[in-house]
Amino acid sequence: MHDLTPAGKIGHWLCQFERALSARAIEATLALFQERCFWRDMVAFTWNIKTMEGPSEIAAFLAATLGDVAPRNFAIEGEARKNEDAIEARFTFETRTLTGRGHVRLRDGKAYTVLTTASALKGYQEKAGRLRGAGVAHGVHPNRQSWLELKLRREAELGSTCQPYCVIIGGGQGGIALAARLKRLEVPTIVLERNARAGDSWRNRYQSLCLHDPVWYDHLPYLPFPDHWPVFSPKDKLGDWLEMYVKVMELNYWTSAPCLGASYAVDAKEWSVRVDHNGERITLRPKQLVLATGMSGFPEVPNVPGRDSFEGEQHHSSRHTSGAAYSGKRCVVIGSNNSAHDIAADLWEHGADVTMVQRSPTVVVRSETLIEKAHAPLYSEAALEKGISTDIADLILASVPHRLVPERAKVIYDEIRERDKDLYTGLEKAGFCFHFGGDGSGIHAIYARRGSGYYIDVGASELIADGRIKLKSRVEVERIMPSGVRLSDGSFLPAELIVYATGFGPMNEWAAHLISPEVAATVGKCWGLGSDTPKDPGPWEGELRNMWRPTQQEALWFHGGNLQQSRFYSLQLALQIKARAVGIPTPVYGLQPVYHRH
Amino acid sequence: MHDLTPAGKIGHWLCQFERALSARAIEATLALFQERCFWRDMVAFTWNIKTMEGPSEIAAFLAATLGDVAPRNFAIEGEARKNEDAIEARFTFETRTLTGRGHVRLRDGKAYTVLTTASALKGYQEKAGRLRGAGVAHGVHPNRQSWLELKLRREAELGSTCQPYCVIIGGGQGGIALAARLKRLEVPTIVLERNARAGDSWRNRYQSLCLHDPVWYDHLPYLPFPDHWPVFSPKDKLGDWLEMYVKVMELNYWTSAPCLGASYAVDAKEWSVRVDHNGERITLRPKQLVLATGMSGFPEVPNVPGRDSFEGEQHHSSRHTSGAAYSGKRCVVIGSNNSAHDIAADLWEHGADVTMVQRSPTVVVRSETLIEKAHAPLYSEAALEKGISTDIADLILASVPHRLVPERAKVIYDEIRERDKDLYTGLEKAGFCFHFGGDGSGIHAIYARRGSGYYIDVGASELIADGRIKLKSRVEVERIMPSGVRLSDGSFLPAELIVYATGFGPMNEWAAHLISPEVAATVGKCWGLGSDTPKDPGPWEGELRNMWRPTQQEALWFHGGNLQQSRFYSLQLALQIKARAVGIPTPVYGLQPVYHRH
Repeated sequence: MHDLTPAGKIGHWLCQFERALSARAIEATLALFQERCFWRDMVAFTWNIKTMEGPSEIAAFLAATLGDVAPRNFAIEGEARKNEDAIEARFTFETRTLTGRGHVRLRDGKAYTVLTTASALKGYQEKAGRLRGAGVAHGVHPNRQSWLELKLRREAELGSTCQPYCVIIGGGQGGIALAARLKRLEVPTIVLERNARAGDSWRNRYQSLCLHDPVWYDHLPYLPFPDHWPVFSPKDKLGDWLEMYVKVMELNYWTSAPCLGASYAVDAKEWSVRVDHNGERITLRPKQLVLATGMSGFPEVPNVPGRDSFEGEQHHSSRHTSGAAYSGKRCVVIGSNNSAHDIAADLWEHGADVTMVQRSPTVVVRSETLIEKAHAPLYSEAALEKGISTDIADLILASVPHRLVPERAKVIYDEIRERDKDLYTGLEKAGFCFHFGGDGSGIHAIYARRGSGYYIDVGASELIADGRIKLKSRVEVERIMPSGVRLSDGSFLPAELIVYATGFGPMNEWAAHLISPEVAATVGKCWGLGSDTPKDPGPWEGELRNMWRPTQQEALWFHGGNLQQSRFYSLQLALQIKARAVGIPTPVYGLQPVYHRH
Repeated sequence: MHDLTPAGKIGHWLCQFERALSARAIEATLALFQERCFWRDMVAFTWNIKTMEGPSEIAAFLAATLGDVAPRNFAIEGEARKNEDAIEARFTFETRTLTGRGHVRLRDGKAYTVLTTASALKGYQEKAGRLRGAGVAHGVHPNRQSWLELKLRREAELGSTCQPYCVIIGGGQGGIALAARLKRLEVPTIVLERNARAGDSWRNRYQSLCLHDPVWYDHLPYLPFPDHWPVFSPKDKLGDWLEMYVKVMELNYWTSAPCLGASYAVDAKEWSVRVDHNGERITLRPKQLVLATGMSGFPEVPNVPGRDSFEGEQHHSSRHTSGAAYSGKRCVVIGSNNSAHDIAADLWEHGADVTMVQRSPTVVVRSETLIEKAHAPLYSEAALEKGISTDIADLILASVPHRLVPERAKVIYDEIRERDKDLYTGLEKAGFCFHFGGDGSGIHAIYARRGSGYYIDVGASELIADGRIKLKSRVEVERIMPSGVRLSDGSFLPAELIVYATGFGPMNEWAAHLISPEVAATVGKCWGLGSDTPKDPGPWEGELRNMWRPTQQEALWFHGGNLQQSRFYSLQLALQIKARAVGIPTPVYGLQPVYHRH
């Protein structure tokens, strides 16, 4: 054993693993795992997204699933790598109904982490590469219809004489990526987008917005950005890309089509989805409904007394467009996360007198540092040169269970604190209240826990440190006065503009609004892990609540997140939907109970 | 030597080659070539596209260019391959001003063919990959402009307060591919397209049209089709793709902008290009002008007596849309090339009574056979699986000088004749007059020689063989009568529709029309090789006349061809234009004399 290469060791382990699984020998399987161990499964074994932690959870999971799943043909994919404390490799496998890809990390010859994911349903492969269509039927075909005629006819039929199997509410990156997956899987789907054009959910945001994640992290499925695409996509450019993508992928994407409401008929196992389409009220009757309305609910403005008395302009950050109109004006930005910083900097750059009001601590990391420390090993030109394609990077990223993210992150954040100490000293001197998450685990952990609470610094921290953006920290807004803001420390900020960069309500507000408060309560809180940190109450759940996997409401799904998540999880969700569309059995293992109704 | 691997042999040859070139030792260089040998150069050595045939032409070329070019750092790229009669490999190299890629084929240790091409100008690399832009300027920038603001401002300026360096007339695949190259090379360029939308040059053609070349051959630069794209793009789908591409690549693409005329001021070294843009007459003043108006001139309808007397409908093939209106009608299609066959089949599929009038022999090859025999080795899934990317395939394709195409093709066509003998026997029995080009060299040779004269069979040949499409062959149209067509054999075809699938005039008609008859005569005939076969008079010129390289008219260029040519040659042409834009010396070796004025 000891003189084997990493690939040899992993090959050997996979062989034993397969033998134990084939024999349904749970003890023998557990003997291949470390005492502290994790098996994260997406769809392949559980028809769920679930992390089993430790031998007893893994044993229960195997006992419940092995009979149906019948996993086999495990084979290493690509190269094995040796790190400080583990060797790791990707692998492929198959089950009775699907082919899958996975990842394993071995320590001392035993598994520390295992990831299994679905990649295709047997008999329902996407028609790509060698399986692609001809585009034309050669030969003689009386009354042949052209591609365009067929396309127009199908578009006209879908939603009128022919019902979609799936409706996706929300046509941002999430809805678009999922619809593209379903298109390639030939699941008739309609996306409902309330805006006039695909991409408007980005275009409508503040003018200076650029993505905070780098391009290598942001590709949509199937059609990557060309290699001159800038590192940080400006929001209008991204909007145009999304609009193009919808067209090229031939998605059934209804614009200016707000969803008016939806309800589920349990007997018929069918949704009624009411939509305003080109001024006409239409009811769609899909079997599956996906809410892809963004990972946030509605804009949240704190209920501060006196708000109606304010004589200047006031709006939520989601309504801010540009600082151009506020040159020379006194502006107060309430909040201290990404949007608050971007908007404060935008106002300052346009010559406004800006004060930020910080109410709670913020995780701050410089963009360059984050890129180098967090993204570059998997998502960068250097990674590509090492053969780590987007596809491979996604699998490796998923191979780390949420439980392990904080401890792996802490090492990085210790380095970051040292590297950028000038930044942090400056912020400290200015009175800015920053941290690295309650437990020092930084941005990626806080993003999974609550989806907010951080600023990726692209310049505003410098403005705060040197006082060009003024700061009021560790205060609450006590009252809005006709001419400004009174804070809890008794001070008064005169203002002509107040921007409430105070975040958004929870994601299942959309379920309450579009379906019913009862259904929203049935599915409960979305996003978050149960980490028992602020805004993410326990108990520990191990995966993002309700995201990309079955919920307590039959045939209702939640899809969303950043571009990486939209890309990666859209495949797992699309395969779950496709399996249901074609009648492949999908016994869900470990459907998550609801601990938090709201 | 003899026990070296192919890579070793080619490495050894490249080393000797570099040594001889560095020493400007022409005799020593020639000693590395076979007696029958070819050196095809694109831009790298000649600032031209030119094939030198035999030792004496190579000697003259080296004597004229080596001093300026100073080639060095030749290194093998990828794997070397051994074929029946040669070993071959790609290589990289550099010159004083650029980096290049090439290909060499050795027989008995000596070069049989050498290809050298330009890939980038030193100091002016395209900003892609590691060189890509940030998309946002991090830090503090008073009065920052967003991507959208900058884009709108630049679009408004270009052509009004700021002149483009280059104007491309014609926004089909050729103009678009070239504009994309120039965009990445940061050469300010405007494309003038007379149609309302990018892609209309395809959309406006007959409804049943699909590309006859397969998808692997058809990618545009930078942004390949996704892998579910059908093998044969339907014309409207391709039109949509082109429209998307123009937007995503942020080309300055003026639609509904017919060029009204152009003239060159020799002293100012500047063109005046008059254009109708949104109803406004604008004069653009670029330094370079590219005609990318398609490889054909104007629709050509033979001047048959009696045409005006015809009481039915008659139109050129370029005006045909669909057979749907002609069910039960008698239709005569004059011509026997691709469009004639497609239109005849379309009419038949819609229930018309169709007769094809064949006036001269046609090269016919079944599409499947052509794909397998001609395309698949370089452009197919199988090729991709062997590591032959589009980029590599293009280089290998270019490595075969035009002189060698017919003799290599004959072998393939002997196989094709055998394989599809049922087809050819059927056509023969029906009286259809087919051949494989005068010298048996088939479609690719005839395409280079005259750009027409062939049918890639996707079904119509079967209809002709079994008489469902009627045929009149080896006849001329003698007279159009009010109710039909009288042929030279005395027969009469009653008709309610006549389609003239009679081709197009020569490409430099556009130069005559848009610039002047004098300039058209100065540059002379475009396309064709001087093969001394029908419609391609000698003497032998070795490269397509006037295409993608300097012409006898300063600052006037011709760009066009199929999608593969648009992709590949657009880089060579864009680098020639960029070099001129930044003042890199571009001494043209062997500017082609004009043998045919029209």
